[in-house]
Amino acid sequence: MPDVVVCGASGYAGALAAHLLWRHPAFELRAVTARSDVGRRLDDLYPRHRVPLVLEELDLERHGKVDAAVVAYPHGASAPVVSALLDLGTKVVDLSADFRLTDLEVYERWYGEHGAPDRMDEAVYGLTELRRQEVSGATLVANPGCYPTATLLALAPLARAGAIADVVVDAKSGVSGAGRGADDTTHFVSADENVTPYGVGGHRHSPEIDQELAALGADVPAAFTPHLLPLDQGELVSCYVTPRREMDDAELRGLYLEAYADEPFVELADRPPGVREVRDTNICRIFARADERTGKLMVFATIDNLWKGAASQAVQNLNLMFGRPEGEGIS
Amino acid sequence: MPDVVVCGASGYAGALAAHLLWRHPAFELRAVTARSDVGRRLDDLYPRHRVPLVLEELDLERHGKVDAAVVAYPHGASAPVVSALLDLGTKVVDLSADFRLTDLEVYERWYGEHGAPDRMDEAVYGLTELRRQEVSGATLVANPGCYPTATLLALAPLARAGAIADVVVDAKSGVSGAGRGADDTTHFVSADENVTPYGVGGHRHSPEIDQELAALGADVPAAFTPHLLPLDQGELVSCYVTPRREMDDAELRGLYLEAYADEPFVELADRPPGVREVRDTNICRIFARADERTGKLMVFATIDNLWKGAASQAVQNLNLMFGRPEGEGIS
Amino acid sequence: MPDVVVCGASGYAGALAAHLLWRHPAFELRAVTARSDVGRRLDDLYPRHRVPLVLEELDLERHGKVDAAVVAYPHGASAPVVSALLDLGTKVVDLSADFRLTDLEVYERWYGEHGAPDRMDEAVYGLTELRRQEVSGATLVANPGCYPTATLLALAPLARAGAIADVVVDAKSGVSGAGRGADDTTHFVSADENVTPYGVGGHRHSPEIDQELAALGADVPAAFTPHLLPLDQGELVSCYVTPRREMDDAELRGLYLEAYADEPFVELADRPPGVREVRDTNICRIFARADERTGKLMVFATIDNLWKGAASQAVQNLNLMFGRPEGEGIS
Amino acid sequence: MPDVVVCGASGYAGALAAHLLWRHPAFELRAVTARSDVGRRLDDLYPRHRVPLVLEELDLERHGKVDAAVVAYPHGASAPVVSALLDLGTKVVDLSADFRLTDLEVYERWYGEHGAPDRMDEAVYGLTELRRQEVSGATLVANPGCYPTATLLALAPLARAGAIADVVVDAKSGVSGAGRGADDTTHFVSADENVTPYGVGGHRHSPEIDQELAALGADVPAAFTPHLLPLDQGELVSCYVTPRREMDDAELRGLYLEAYADEPFVELADRPPGVREVRDTNICRIFARADERTGKLMVFATIDNLWKGAASQAVQNLNLMFGRPEGEGIS
Repeated sequence: MPDVVVCGASGYAGALAAHLLWRHPAFELRAVTARSDVGRRLDDLYPRHRVPLVLEELDLERHGKVDAAVVAYPHGASAPVVSALLDLGTKVVDLSADFRLTDLEVYERWYGEHGAPDRMDEAVYGLTELRRQEVSGATLVANPGCYPTATLLALAPLARAGAIADVVVDAKSGVSGAGRGADDTTHFVSADENVTPYGVGGHRHSPEIDQELAALGADVPAAFTPHLLPLDQGELVSCYVTPRREMDDAELRGLYLEAYADEPFVELADRPPGVREVRDTNICRIFARADERTGKLMVFATIDNLWKGAASQAVQNLNLMFGRPEGEGIS
Repeated sequence: MPDVVVCGASGYAGALAAHLLWRHPAFELRAVTARSDVGRRLDDLYPRHRVPLVLEELDLERHGKVDAAVVAYPHGASAPVVSALLDLGTKVVDLSADFRLTDLEVYERWYGEHGAPDRMDEAVYGLTELRRQEVSGATLVANPGCYPTATLLALAPLARAGAIADVVVDAKSGVSGAGRGADDTTHFVSADENVTPYGVGGHRHSPEIDQELAALGADVPAAFTPHLLPLDQGELVSCYVTPRREMDDAELRGLYLEAYADEPFVELADRPPGVREVRDTNICRIFARADERTGKLMVFATIDNLWKGAASQAVQNLNLMFGRPEGEGIS
Repeated sequence: MPDVVVCGASGYAGALAAHLLWRHPAFELRAVTARSDVGRRLDDLYPRHRVPLVLEELDLERHGKVDAAVVAYPHGASAPVVSALLDLGTKVVDLSADFRLTDLEVYERWYGEHGAPDRMDEAVYGLTELRRQEVSGATLVANPGCYPTATLLALAPLARAGAIADVVVDAKSGVSGAGRGADDTTHFVSADENVTPYGVGGHRHSPEIDQELAALGADVPAAFTPHLLPLDQGELVSCYVTPRREMDDAELRGLYLEAYADEPFVELADRPPGVREVRDTNICRIFARADERTGKLMVFATIDNLWKGAASQAVQNLNLMFGRPEGEGIS
Repeated sequence: MPDVVVCGASGYAGALAAHLLWRHPAFELRAVTARSDVGRRLDDLYPRHRVPLVLEELDLERHGKVDAAVVAYPHGASAPVVSALLDLGTKVVDLSADFRLTDLEVYERWYGEHGAPDRMDEAVYGLTELRRQEVSGATLVANPGCYPTATLLALAPLARAGAIADVVVDAKSGVSGAGRGADDTTHFVSADENVTPYGVGGHRHSPEIDQELAALGADVPAAFTPHLLPLDQGELVSCYVTPRREMDDAELRGLYLEAYADEPFVELADRPPGVREVRDTNICRIFARADERTGKLMVFATIDNLWKGAASQAVQNLNLMFGRPEGEGIS
């Protein structure tokens, strides 16, 4: 049974990954490491995850001798650790942004200096449904951001069909997407009874979305704007596509059926989905509709930002990298 | 001192209108009527509004002999009552949709038969900031819907400048916008920890938005989609405009300053606003930004759907109709 | 493999029971019945539960020929159905109040006429941890109410020790505890940003709590008052015990350790628990503390009202009735 | 017109006090000071309060020459500032705990060293309804804590009647009560969908409650336990009194009517109140009921913790200290 370590388990995504792997029938969770809260038990920090391990400082001597690692460090801090783990022969799923972008220059513009630029080529962008084959053979998977996950699953069928002339992506996320850092933004009193756009015109998930949309055939910059909502877990992207050619509802639905009918973790809804419907699951639920009045194609996709948008997609990828059934431990 | 009656005070908007008028220094609230909860005291039904009047059945004999009425009945039920009140010489602000649309055919397509089509011409569309003059002289004001209020204030400067080639309006509203009716949608367990698009491709506020955008100079159908959020009061519209010609941030901000610098109830924010910032106020708070990367103009506007989106705008209009200072009783 | 039917699957508790049994490795869910929403698929009504069965009207001919039934009807409606199922040889877990009280007179005072008084003797009160033996041999289990479940687990060690002279139980519950019925109380706008005591001096769970406390050795009426909180699932009972004799922290904790150290679904916390810590689990998490200043013993217990407070405890009981491991399908 | 300064206006209570005084017809708000966020405009930090002043560092030279000050510093930091202001002839309402306790030893046990012990005698405990006379003549008012405010208003009639043998106070508060400090407790993800007891057996408001209960005639330690709720503003105390002698509902209600019938800011409800009913008001709403079954007297009181529990009560006291109508600026 392959053993695995979660690096950065004191954050929301890392802690959930630890929870999923602790219960996983085919992996053995050896250790959880963190940069803060070292020495504290994970089930004290996150009682609901019930992982009875103590958070340790990362020690490559001990933690590097594992078959797999899920790294949930912030961007920048992640790359050197990932690189070291790869050197030791560990397969890695990295939840940071460090290996998602293929163009170093673009990375540096949005995130600053890169900690292991020579390893960028090794990474596979791990949006499982779109890169299943490559993920299976990868030693380093760059787990997608939560917004790109939902957006790309929402738009892939249209992008591949060459149907996107222009697209507005209005995204909404629960507060867990902002991470465990306590500040004015994540304070209950700030977020409660509120909704706020943020990162207007410059969110870091933009280049990631654009890169992958282009790879799928839609070389247009998406007008992507996230909003913070007063809820915990859950993300909705509302995509408004101006099509290259007219498309009616039947054709649109046909495209999505063809793309996703056999996907175990994509559901096609027959009405607009709410984020509650995918809470605590690895599922992306999609509703698409052609709007006669405006000629626009509207696609709504929901995920749980901590699950499919981070930790459970990491496990989905890990399963593939180790030849396990894709849904093991996350269904 | 003019006296006033609120018809339909058992709903959220009507009850708030009663609250505002009960405390208003220049109007005397004579009675509150309702179709349900008759005989119950309003401060029992809405303790926080503290209006110690008993809800009565509408009796034109008694209630029609007032100077002014705010009618907060559902569309369809409103028109005949409004018409009867006008016959009695009462000035009316109608919160329903019955007198907002100028084209009878359009009304009937979205709402069914009209109860007083011959009176449609008399109505002034009461988005105060855009129709101040006409409102002042009106006997019947059709109070705008909450979404149109926020959307039109957000887009008016661009529409007037002839700058809108295409526009997506992604709207978010708290649950009070869905009214007091208790059903699966408004049940706490349905709305909590959730966000759901609704009325996709066919919300009744669409024709109202389109009519008024056209009147302002932008004859394009807006791709308008509302979403239900887990909060009580508050509404945000996120508008993504494809401009007819390039426009940079400086020019964009200039347009908004010119339009709104002197408006007492419009605030121009220097960062994206949250709905909390306008809660329990008559204020619309707007942030506009030109997005270089996509060429889009992004405009975000927040209001309190029950205040500026309904009851306080009704009082704002009433003030004008009776020659009072516009902000009296709602500042 | 025993087959099972869930009667009353359109409500929150019944739907969750169906969800748990649909995934249960040792039971086969044959059908879901309901009194409303017949003909609708359960995964349309509750997408998140993902049970692809159609809600049927109860037909004893077809649905009675099963090994087991979970009945989630309202009190009053439940008794005759339960009785008929028992006649057909079906083992039943009943989630209603109909078979919880042992004294017919008490039942009738709180709930009205009883639909099958002759069957009351057959029922075992299914608070699993306190009645494991009897549940194992039962054909009819009366699943406890959510408040009694948390309260009795909180107080059992003290009651058995004869230590309770007087007790105040201040209970707090999420809105799902009020059921799926849409009314003024469960409307989002009523419950949001609010907290309200209800059933003051007369909640129906009082006689159930008193009966079972007496059975455990504490023959005192608990001053039980529930409060409605702005959250979905989760329940906290705060118990303030005036002890018959002084008890310090060490002795108190010893009592609880002795009672619960080996219980798989009871956790003893070392600080006051929050309801999030048990969300979507069958776990009851308890914190007990002797307060030197006042001499009171304080015990706080949290459960998920829909899980341990209803559906998962039903499955826990069903497991025992069919000789399965107690935690199967609910861990 | 007396001028006033608010010291510590960057916190929730101070900011609200500034908001109320900025609009107050009889005071002129000269300056707002803070220990953090100096140089930032208050309406940037708290847009909804709309106070267009810049936060300054406290400078007694400039800020001390005012008629009145509201000090909203943390305990410990407050005393020396208050003392200095008093020396300059400024009347002070202090929102910290520094001058609430009359016994220095008790203060030091709960809060540590006192910054101006010689001034403790000058302070009047400013629970307005209970100390109206003394507040009117005071130069230093110690504004009560939020929990004591609600608890003492709830229990005063019983305490004065000598009717309290024992009392449990189960208190529930929104997150704003925990202050603006961003930490694990106030993070949205921690508080959302949660309810947690805290300060079990040792909350700092306990000695304050006990001191004032004793002053009112009830020399019993209250078993006081607060709970954190997922809402912003609002506080409910549920008081369970074991009476010294039997008391029925009629007598109980009589006591409360006698005590509060003429109080402008105390409402006697005829059913259990929700905190929404007093949001953004200076009102305390109370419901009392004798419970026949247990013999207990139950009293429920709600306030807005930031208003009556802090800032608006401060203004209420300030009004009295300057001979203004008690409700001016806060009704």
